Amino acid sequence: MKRVVYSDLQSKVEWLYQKWGFTKNDSKKITDVLLLSDLFGIESHGVHRLKMYKRNILSGRIKINAKLEHVKETDLTCVIDAHQAMGQIAGTDSMELAIKKAEKNGIGIVTTRNSNHYGIAGFYAKMASSKGLIGISCTNTGAIMLPTFAKKALIGSNPLAFAFPLKGRDFLYDASSTVVSKGKVEIYRGKGQELPGYWGKNSQGENTNDPDKLEEALIEKKVGGLFPLGGENETNGGHKGFGLGLIVEILTGILSDGYTSDEINIGNIGGASHFFLALDLSLFGNQTQMEQKLFDYFMRIKMAPRTDDRKKIYIHGEKEQRNYEENIQKGIPVNESVWTDLLSIFNEFGIENPLCY
Amino acid sequence: MKRVVYSDLQSKVEWLYQKWGFTKNDSKKITDVLLLSDLFGIESHGVHRLKMYKRNILSGRIKINAKLEHVKETDLTCVIDAHQAMGQIAGTDSMELAIKKAEKNGIGIVTTRNSNHYGIAGFYAKMASSKGLIGISCTNTGAIMLPTFAKKALIGSNPLAFAFPLKGRDFLYDASSTVVSKGKVEIYRGKGQELPGYWGKNSQGENTNDPDKLEEALIEKKVGGLFPLGGENETNGGHKGFGLGLIVEILTGILSDGYTSDEINIGNIGGASHFFLALDLSLFGNQTQMEQKLFDYFMRIKMAPRTDDRKKIYIHGEKEQRNYEENIQKGIPVNESVWTDLLSIFNEFGIENPLCY
Repeated sequence: MKRVVYSDLQSKVEWLYQKWGFTKNDSKKITDVLLLSDLFGIESHGVHRLKMYKRNILSGRIKINAKLEHVKETDLTCVIDAHQAMGQIAGTDSMELAIKKAEKNGIGIVTTRNSNHYGIAGFYAKMASSKGLIGISCTNTGAIMLPTFAKKALIGSNPLAFAFPLKGRDFLYDASSTVVSKGKVEIYRGKGQELPGYWGKNSQGENTNDPDKLEEALIEKKVGGLFPLGGENETNGGHKGFGLGLIVEILTGILSDGYTSDEINIGNIGGASHFFLALDLSLFGNQTQMEQKLFDYFMRIKMAPRTDDRKKIYIHGEKEQRNYEENIQKGIPVNESVWTDLLSIFNEFGIENPLCY
Repeated sequence: MKRVVYSDLQSKVEWLYQKWGFTKNDSKKITDVLLLSDLFGIESHGVHRLKMYKRNILSGRIKINAKLEHVKETDLTCVIDAHQAMGQIAGTDSMELAIKKAEKNGIGIVTTRNSNHYGIAGFYAKMASSKGLIGISCTNTGAIMLPTFAKKALIGSNPLAFAFPLKGRDFLYDASSTVVSKGKVEIYRGKGQELPGYWGKNSQGENTNDPDKLEEALIEKKVGGLFPLGGENETNGGHKGFGLGLIVEILTGILSDGYTSDEINIGNIGGASHFFLALDLSLFGNQTQMEQKLFDYFMRIKMAPRTDDRKKIYIHGEKEQRNYEENIQKGIPVNESVWTDLLSIFNEFGIENPLCY
């Protein structure tokens, strides 16, 4: 495993996007989203994805010069047509607008259609919490979730992110509505390990703990897919994850008049839809007091007796913050296969190898 | 099992609440929430709970003449102090206010503190969707959920409800953040059956599928409790259910400046907090078109190939609507032990036995 110098990687990824035709400003936006994921330790959504973005940019699924159109706007809301823009540009601009509305009128909600994969939902929620607001963001994605009792995937991983400002220790929930994300399956495949549970069905419609078979089904998109959070059938609440996926679908594809997950990433159309909400806490009371109350509650949780002394209790966002601080200092961890891909892409576009520690 | 005539049960439960000191209007509000639960087939939150409410009313935890106080109000939001009112009264009035604000200004958010158990969260979400709005409601509750890697419960079941209007076939998600609700454990205990999975830890901190041992831990509130949605540890996403519980905690106890779950239902204080949101769809586009798009998507999901021909694919709210239609006609199903309790309470307050089919 390499440890890549953050600032160097940042300027080189920005440069790569400029080579691909994006403006300097847009390239910076995209890179910020990608690298925050790596800094947070969520390797599945960082530079690991450059290959996918390159493919979608070259194929025209992502339009380099797309202009975001405000289709319908009020003081509190906006519906944006991203016209197949890079998801990170559509996402950043949409959340900026929601934040502006919340700062002025208390609440801002933006829904965005005809976009593309926008990286980690948590980036956008955190944009709001960094400004002292509650932030919520979610997105639909290509269909990989099996509705309860179905053997064909018709719902996306549909992640939801929620952030609450806590002075640099923000609460940050960011999770898919599926039992695990596709990225987790890829990691087990990369390591050649069996999955630790039945996370989905293979393309024969059978439960599998083989990461190869599961990924094959996710790519083929005919039969099979990931179970919703809560697992197969209703015994342990699989219908809840299924329902969470549908809530995300309503907030994104329906409220933006966009596509639903089963219509996304087909042929030359990306078509993801996103949702962004920013909420001013002062509508409800004294912000410092609320932060203190939440912080105290989190402390009581963290000090609870544990099932295993080796397992710490983490509040959502803590691990990411800890990784951030470590990776900024020691460099972004990049495994061998991602490193090879990175060099090959950089090389192809005449960019030098990123510096390592 | 008895089938009790709905209209007769309704007037008798209303009468019971009047005997307990509530006004005619308040008694009707309470009864509407309770019986919708029974009509929906969610027996754990209907007349089955009269015993609990009676205990809390007699002990003074629920204040009969509490007046709701608007502590802080804007055009879009309100924070209400319910002063230990019956949860169904606080809930109904709060959501009515959120709806009024949404109808006038597009969005209405109300948070309510110092309330009590408010019944099914879905009732309040559906109040909004019945008026053509998106409705969201959630509540914190006494602590019964184990944070991931903790062996003491510090989070409530923290249900979240989300409703989208679909002309009498509204999408209605209503689910706890725990792997199952406490009511589900009670049902298995009632039947004397083992739980079909490890849903939590007993008061020794060990995983158990014995409903008696699990309920004992939930009552003792020292060690043990229910796992979050996703189950024990992080393998199948238990940290996601844990995080959903915390999101509900923020929206309720924190945004209303109320109590967090670990401070609720202790001694003579109930102290639950709730959250209510209503959202006007016309802010985003043409409502009929959105409904049609969602309806079509649901149809594609329902027609998906199934894992088992005997298992139908249900969209959230469909089963409840089907039960509603059946139970309005054939009577509300009440099992022997609930029937006995019901007669004893009615008898004690001089109310005749409800009519059965």
